[in-house]
Amino acid sequence: MSRRQITFWFDFASTYSYLSAMRIGDMATRLNLGIRWQPFLLGPIFAEQGWDTSPFNLYPAKGAYMWRDLERQCEARNLAFMRPDPFPQHSLLAARVALAALEHDNGASFCREVFCAQFARGADISNPATIADCLHRSGFPETLMDKADDQHIKDRLRDHVSRARAVGIFGAPSFTVGSELFWGDDRLDSAMQHAERRTGELE
Amino acid sequence: MSRRQITFWFDFASTYSYLSAMRIGDMATRLNLGIRWQPFLLGPIFAEQGWDTSPFNLYPAKGAYMWRDLERQCEARNLAFMRPDPFPQHSLLAARVALAALEHDNGASFCREVFCAQFARGADISNPATIADCLHRSGFPETLMDKADDQHIKDRLRDHVSRARAVGIFGAPSFTVGSELFWGDDRLDSAMQHAERRTGELE
Repeated sequence: MSRRQITFWFDFASTYSYLSAMRIGDMATRLNLGIRWQPFLLGPIFAEQGWDTSPFNLYPAKGAYMWRDLERQCEARNLAFMRPDPFPQHSLLAARVALAALEHDNGASFCREVFCAQFARGADISNPATIADCLHRSGFPETLMDKADDQHIKDRLRDHVSRARAVGIFGAPSFTVGSELFWGDDRLDSAMQHAERRTGELE
Repeated sequence: MSRRQITFWFDFASTYSYLSAMRIGDMATRLNLGIRWQPFLLGPIFAEQGWDTSPFNLYPAKGAYMWRDLERQCEARNLAFMRPDPFPQHSLLAARVALAALEHDNGASFCREVFCAQFARGADISNPATIADCLHRSGFPETLMDKADDQHIKDRLRDHVSRARAVGIFGAPSFTVGSELFWGDDRLDSAMQHAERRTGELE
């Protein structure tokens, strides 16, 4: 019987992906579920909807609400929070280095460090020095950053974007379990419950 | 000490408002909170964002997801669900009659009947016959429908839209407790908890 799995689709620039990234690991451990960390880019998907930036910037009332909501959520979860400026940040470098890190066992630690750098300390994740620091904090050599230029890493990120689009993803975080899609940190519990119910099915 | 209160902002055409309408009464009773049912119209607010219909229609991936998510949520809560066609429905008549009904003690029952007519039985709530049936089911005389044409009812609905805009509302359902705004059925519990913590404050 295969280990039950949940695929966690995230963009490093996504505010609510921070909330999920910081709790999904513990939740999955408790439920004995596997997680596939799947960084992708929202930019190309937003562009297809005619958006050249985050909808939180395009729609000011929605944006103002999101920042207040995020602040409240972080407070309730004892998560540090600092609003990054600019927002959204360019997440391409982080995503590519994450794909290289995720070829190793503790790749998820690197991903969490990137989210914390940006949303707990307000650092700019498009800055290679920030990424180098995240690698260091998660026990990777700085040289892993060179892999961001490898063709197979670039291709894999492009493939993740195509697959995100193909499964109907329109925002982040999203979670897939088999053919079911769940959107938003608010649906992480539902996704986990769905994964628990699916016994022995291959993803 | 005043009774603690939550204001429930909804548009009858809003899918997730259905979920909140069907549970907010029981939740508030358990917590001894008062609810101010505040129907408003999303149309004018969406129009300001450049939208001439629901974002669930404008963004097909988001729309397809919403219908599946709503179906799952209804199933989990043992709520009947039938997708209304067309969507979104014209909610002006329902909102005006609701304002007249909410001048009486069991106005909330009428509101629930409207949501059920639309989302449990697929009826068209812009049809006066549907509204008449909802009045009947909630113990109101059909003649209450005539109040929809009263100037004070029209003015009140317009006022609700202005106030919704003023407090930063951009979607439905929304909940306000004092100066805090909560958006979406997923934040109803947070709104309730916030109301519980505010003791003795006047709204």
